[in-house]
Amino acid sequence: MDRPKVALTMGDVAGVGPELIARAWSRPELHALCSPLVVGDVAVLRRAIEETVGDGERPRVQPITTPEEADPSPSLIPCLQPPGAEDVVEVKPCSVDARAGRGSYVYLVHAIDLALEGRVDAITTLPLNKESLSLAGVPHPGHTEILAERCGTPDHAMMLYLPSHEGHGVGVVHVTLHMALRDVFDAITIESVAAKIRLADRSMRPLTDDGSRPRIAVASLNPHAGEHGLFGDEEITTIGPAVEITRSEGLAVSGPFPNDTLFRDALSGKFDAVVAMYHDQGHIALKTVGFWNGVNVTLGLPIVRTSVAHGTAFDIAWKGTADPSSLFEALRVAARMVAWNRRHPQG
Amino acid sequence: MDRPKVALTMGDVAGVGPELIARAWSRPELHALCSPLVVGDVAVLRRAIEETVGDGERPRVQPITTPEEADPSPSLIPCLQPPGAEDVVEVKPCSVDARAGRGSYVYLVHAIDLALEGRVDAITTLPLNKESLSLAGVPHPGHTEILAERCGTPDHAMMLYLPSHEGHGVGVVHVTLHMALRDVFDAITIESVAAKIRLADRSMRPLTDDGSRPRIAVASLNPHAGEHGLFGDEEITTIGPAVEITRSEGLAVSGPFPNDTLFRDALSGKFDAVVAMYHDQGHIALKTVGFWNGVNVTLGLPIVRTSVAHGTAFDIAWKGTADPSSLFEALRVAARMVAWNRRHPQG
Repeated sequence: MDRPKVALTMGDVAGVGPELIARAWSRPELHALCSPLVVGDVAVLRRAIEETVGDGERPRVQPITTPEEADPSPSLIPCLQPPGAEDVVEVKPCSVDARAGRGSYVYLVHAIDLALEGRVDAITTLPLNKESLSLAGVPHPGHTEILAERCGTPDHAMMLYLPSHEGHGVGVVHVTLHMALRDVFDAITIESVAAKIRLADRSMRPLTDDGSRPRIAVASLNPHAGEHGLFGDEEITTIGPAVEITRSEGLAVSGPFPNDTLFRDALSGKFDAVVAMYHDQGHIALKTVGFWNGVNVTLGLPIVRTSVAHGTAFDIAWKGTADPSSLFEALRVAARMVAWNRRHPQG
Repeated sequence: MDRPKVALTMGDVAGVGPELIARAWSRPELHALCSPLVVGDVAVLRRAIEETVGDGERPRVQPITTPEEADPSPSLIPCLQPPGAEDVVEVKPCSVDARAGRGSYVYLVHAIDLALEGRVDAITTLPLNKESLSLAGVPHPGHTEILAERCGTPDHAMMLYLPSHEGHGVGVVHVTLHMALRDVFDAITIESVAAKIRLADRSMRPLTDDGSRPRIAVASLNPHAGEHGLFGDEEITTIGPAVEITRSEGLAVSGPFPNDTLFRDALSGKFDAVVAMYHDQGHIALKTVGFWNGVNVTLGLPIVRTSVAHGTAFDIAWKGTADPSSLFEALRVAARMVAWNRRHPQG
């Protein structure tokens, strides 16, 4: 089966995006996973190669105007600079700049359109800077909102995915995300927890090795999972019943578990997915363990989209030291999702 | 200066305590750190050596009745079986048993008394089983409560410590611990946060390498540290002011920081201590990263007490596979605290 064609959006040119592309490109594994092309700034990409890639390993950049022209190899980067993308080679590395914000928006929108038209199979995004985006007058706070609007799918969700070992990885779906911790309690209901358990089941199917039912562990809200009601009772009144309901539907779900050992168990291979109750649960675990190899997956879109889980990292950008593991993993996840969709066209 | 004399309490004989002692003992590093003796069951210790230590490395067990008799070496384990300690060699491994619960209580109390009398310099505890303790009729839920009562110090606190690299480690002090997450908000006040920042400063001084002021990072309560008040305002109204107050007192404190990157930064060497707002913040981070090498330190006692951070681990006990790293680290931390107290007798 053809390797999936993946559009890599450069993100904010002042951040780590350009160098991660430049430094990952010559590795043959990347080309075994997918057939990649870059949507971004040609001159910036050339500068990133010049400044952060060793002499013998520098790929050549080939400007293209359509994805059909792309013929990537470890020594050749097809780069599509979308019409209307302002020249951004003057943007200072590691700085907030409206031009870079505008660019990251234009690359993303172009890549989304290519995916919606079926001209690429997936998009994988490098980080943008929210401040630069805002300075450029883009009203969306980040990638996800732009994707949701452009795809016409307000009903989306994020999964944070961390590869652990030998092809195994753990996906974390959050019941609540960007809200005050104080507001989490009202948002945790039997139905909202059950809905996320079902979402975790659907989302992890393309990413479990043998296509079997994903093993889902549900987090608790209180310390020691409430210790039988001693420190809070949401485990008994809400989370437990949601686990029972979805288990009766045939899902491979268990919990709620105490959170201090849950993530360790999942990362050691005992579970494929964790349903977390609030933002910091999942993010503390995955970002403490694997800051530079986490992947964000946007669920509920008509296109496949994955992203590196780290940000623009202005503190280390353009020094050639940023770790491209997350980019590799984001491409690997995108490729698996595309392969699954091809095998399950009704999916 | 003399190596500190440390009493190692065996904990629950059905758990991993006996084998961890047996398997760690022959390593010379352990004896370089301290002069250890065991408080526990002689017959069980002999069985643990027989069953979990390789032929050439088996130390001999020497029954003693006072710590003054102890003359430990990699090939000799002085083991003090306290008067009144029932024989527990019949206890089945990995089982809940009142006899084991009673034993773990008697060993601990004896070790506390030796420390209070100044006959040992510190105690390091192996895990006990709360159910067995309760079956034995001991009214205290765990180690800490027994220590607090026996030492007459109701005002104690726990620090979770994780060694990271090259002698550096991170201590986590929690503002709230065993309470429902819903109740945390009322317990987070400027004064309660400031008090734990001061405690973190005092507690980490013996454990920072050069004796300099510990660098303390304060966690936030809300995702993205509230994103300037967008998702919750406790960072602005409560945690921030507590940081300002303690900084004005001369402490090396900063924050509140977003939690997803905070623990990674601390573990990479940027901070010596983290003040966490609630139980799962610190526990998710440290137990996901280092389940088998964390250390619990009880603060506020008149004696030095450290503990392995893991439990009896009945799922793997008595198979000779449990990792003794946490025991080493607990002894290392105890030894550093004793050394600090000797240098600062007013401490």
